[in-house]
Amino acid sequence: MKDYYIVSDVGGTRMRVAVFEAGEPVPCRHQVIPTHSGGEPPLDRLLGLIAKVHPTEGRLRAIALAAPGVLDPRTGYMYEAPNVQGWIDLPIADILAKKFNAPALLGNDANLAAMGEWQFGAGRGHHDLIYLTISTGIGGGVIMDDRLLLGSRGLATELGHITVDWDGPMCGCGQRGHLEAVASGPAMANWVREQLQKGEESILPLEPAPTARDISWAAGQGDALAQKALARAGRFVGRAVADYLHVFNPSIVIIGGGVSRSGPLFWDTMLATARDSVMTPAYLDGLIITQAALGDDVGLMGAYALASLTYPV
Amino acid sequence: MKDYYIVSDVGGTRMRVAVFEAGEPVPCRHQVIPTHSGGEPPLDRLLGLIAKVHPTEGRLRAIALAAPGVLDPRTGYMYEAPNVQGWIDLPIADILAKKFNAPALLGNDANLAAMGEWQFGAGRGHHDLIYLTISTGIGGGVIMDDRLLLGSRGLATELGHITVDWDGPMCGCGQRGHLEAVASGPAMANWVREQLQKGEESILPLEPAPTARDISWAAGQGDALAQKALARAGRFVGRAVADYLHVFNPSIVIIGGGVSRSGPLFWDTMLATARDSVMTPAYLDGLIITQAALGDDVGLMGAYALASLTYPV
Repeated sequence: MKDYYIVSDVGGTRMRVAVFEAGEPVPCRHQVIPTHSGGEPPLDRLLGLIAKVHPTEGRLRAIALAAPGVLDPRTGYMYEAPNVQGWIDLPIADILAKKFNAPALLGNDANLAAMGEWQFGAGRGHHDLIYLTISTGIGGGVIMDDRLLLGSRGLATELGHITVDWDGPMCGCGQRGHLEAVASGPAMANWVREQLQKGEESILPLEPAPTARDISWAAGQGDALAQKALARAGRFVGRAVADYLHVFNPSIVIIGGGVSRSGPLFWDTMLATARDSVMTPAYLDGLIITQAALGDDVGLMGAYALASLTYPV
Repeated sequence: MKDYYIVSDVGGTRMRVAVFEAGEPVPCRHQVIPTHSGGEPPLDRLLGLIAKVHPTEGRLRAIALAAPGVLDPRTGYMYEAPNVQGWIDLPIADILAKKFNAPALLGNDANLAAMGEWQFGAGRGHHDLIYLTISTGIGGGVIMDDRLLLGSRGLATELGHITVDWDGPMCGCGQRGHLEAVASGPAMANWVREQLQKGEESILPLEPAPTARDISWAAGQGDALAQKALARAGRFVGRAVADYLHVFNPSIVIIGGGVSRSGPLFWDTMLATARDSVMTPAYLDGLIITQAALGDDVGLMGAYALASLTYPV
């Protein structure tokens, strides 16, 4: 009788569910549907999708769910996922465990992405790893000595929320000058809009407001303002990476998310700044700084890593 | 036959050696001598002091040494302790192990101080702990899930070396704007000297240059400039503490070192800033921020914690 795992990654836009046979690195089933549709509660959609892919034979060893928001990975309780309708104060691991009669786990999406890259992606074989994802927000996950850092309430490694510019712009979290407030996609777009309003020249229009993707495109066309924006974000991220080298001394730093793929101006500036900003070259000794390998499936793969490491066959 | 541990804490000024019987929280012998004296190499002085306290009966279970500088805790190799003469490229754990025929361990002094406070001081019973020491420099140690964070080369948790003021003063490490460069004792003294040179009024003289201790005294006398200096350092440390809450989500933050005892203006400002700077109140839920409990013996107690946890009886 085969053992298998069911894993899911629920985001504000899409939810993914996959089935893995124990020991297999690719799923035997994989489904993606919109998180919100036709007024049906996302929890019902998730339970329905899992029921649909649930194999009829074999033993379900465990379920794991990657989700955004504030949650407790130790108890599987979801405090609040602001982008998923109705996910407030939900004992979601308990609900899954009872419904499908198997152990169920819940993890922060960025933390599980770190586990995914560690077990199946760019970080294989490393014991001390930092994963940073830069897109709408900036999130992270850290593996130290082969263990995911959780913190006393499971709220650790909010790597986008360290102060890099004391008097900088307001962050989505309500504090000022965090890394996320200066180097996320929307932060970069805000900075470009401000420069355009000040009369800076650019091929980018003031309306409709340019997105991070537009900026990346314009930089590729040689636009000076767009290039400045990417280099600026690269400097902030590079400096933060150096801070994180001092704090965690990893052997690998993996950077994912849309902004990490916005071109060489961002990447090269980030890399040079990080290398120039360490307190001693020992932090660079054997260090790898690289792009994420797993793409859109990173959350799913991380949930699978969590499930299979916690409940091995 | 009794088991015992010999532990040492070597600093630039003093070296301490103590003998603990297994299971006992206070040492049965304890000696302190100057690190440098009469041209005798510090290593010889250490070996001599250990030989002197070495009990003639019982079994030496392990030796542990807390030291400053750049070292590898996994191999016990000292790369460089700038304040201890001749401690460059020294396989010091091997030397101790061979000389005294017992396993020997080496640890960074701030890391071991964290272990000391965790096992014997303010952090007893906690699983996720940050220790920060603020004096001539700013160092740290972090326990997560009951384990000391080391990093891939043992260089993790250099908590004084994160950037808090991008354009701030040069740090001793050669980078700009680190926490250590704005909130250590010398950093505070430098800032006061600059203000005096600009003509700020104070009971502190320009010559001889005031120390952190002078500033603390003057603040107690109601001196406005000294009070401003303490509050300024408190704000920087408080903001950094909030960043570290986001990164580690500990249940306790323990702050030691001379600056932590420089009076309520520092402490209360630090505390208020940390509390005001978290992204969600969940980080404060059950959190303790407190002064270190162990004083000058913290390094010794940490070395004892390391030795007895690594080589239990």
